Amino acid sequence: MSHVIVEISFVPLGVGTSLSKFVAESLRLIRESGLPHEFHSMGTNVEGEWDEVMSLVRRCQDRLFEMGAPRVTTSLKVSERRDKAYHMADKVGTVNRILSER
Amino acid sequence: MSHVIVEISFVPLGVGTSLSKFVAESLRLIRESGLPHEFHSMGTNVEGEWDEVMSLVRRCQDRLFEMGAPRVTTSLKVSERRDKAYHMADKVGTVNRILSER
Amino acid sequence: MSHVIVEISFVPLGVGTSLSKFVAESLRLIRESGLPHEFHSMGTNVEGEWDEVMSLVRRCQDRLFEMGAPRVTTSLKVSERRDKAYHMADKVGTVNRILSER
Amino acid sequence: MSHVIVEISFVPLGVGTSLSKFVAESLRLIRESGLPHEFHSMGTNVEGEWDEVMSLVRRCQDRLFEMGAPRVTTSLKVSERRDKAYHMADKVGTVNRILSER
Repeated sequence: MSHVIVEISFVPLGVGTSLSKFVAESLRLIRESGLPHEFHSMGTNVEGEWDEVMSLVRRCQDRLFEMGAPRVTTSLKVSERRDKAYHMADKVGTVNRILSER
Repeated sequence: MSHVIVEISFVPLGVGTSLSKFVAESLRLIRESGLPHEFHSMGTNVEGEWDEVMSLVRRCQDRLFEMGAPRVTTSLKVSERRDKAYHMADKVGTVNRILSER
Repeated sequence: MSHVIVEISFVPLGVGTSLSKFVAESLRLIRESGLPHEFHSMGTNVEGEWDEVMSLVRRCQDRLFEMGAPRVTTSLKVSERRDKAYHMADKVGTVNRILSER
Repeated sequence: MSHVIVEISFVPLGVGTSLSKFVAESLRLIRESGLPHEFHSMGTNVEGEWDEVMSLVRRCQDRLFEMGAPRVTTSLKVSERRDKAYHMADKVGTVNRILSER
């Protein structure tokens, strides 16, 4: 089992400059997966097992092609650690705590 | 003038596995800059003029070396458009509106 | 079937600043896969079916943990197009041809 | 002075799926800069001082807008180390030497 946090960002090409409807559709699939996630202006961070997250990425990418994109560029940043439990919420919380303690 | 949204993520190497204090320090410098930003578990998105944002990235990176990191890997994703006004908050808002209208 | 070109870059954390032996081991696994690839100073580009490439990435990442890295950050950039045949060698060749024709 | 190796990848949006002429033009500007570089199928790695490389990135991006792209997404991966001399050619050479010595 490989627990990972993955930042996912899709850029469909050949469909003009407005990508919102593609981003919305991939976010809909991410929500549907039930995996913890964090949507922000440059991508979506998703947490889960490697296989779950990667098959979700594949489903999103297939959906973008179905929606008419002839070409898709996808950036993934995978973060995995085995020295301790590791969750998205903790990462943000720890940093905020350090800053507030000064 | 080049208005950009830049996702910034620093990975200091040679300082062990716990990076929180480095992330906190770079977030402190980002806040100090006064630029609009969005901190999340895989990076920080910052909005501003190209020169402002790039000099901020440089200051953060210098600070990580001062704090003792012998090596730093920085990922930047720059998004720039000239066909219309472009802000972080609008990107997220538009996607949420599409999803809620279904 | 999803034919993709994927840029792969592993950053093991908590193992000091010299990453060469980790990079060498992942390159060895990539070569062993028999997939077309292009090794360069910032990563390795690999071409193949989505499932093949992703299981190769997983094998490399597992190997880095076995070699002692407590934490690994992996960047993947996936490029996929369905409007025409798409190979690494063609991408580079086309650009060089454009430049030489001026 | 900050000596860096930067991987640069431009994705112009709103100009269809064929990006070769844009990639060729940015490679032309990179060559013109005289900085050491390595062109590959997923980007171009450039070595130099931070200011030199960043102003080159800016020039390329401006040129893509001049060529008609209404929107550009640029990925930069900056690698900097201060514990020893650091060059692109050495990175690749060291890894190849490790693999050939087995």
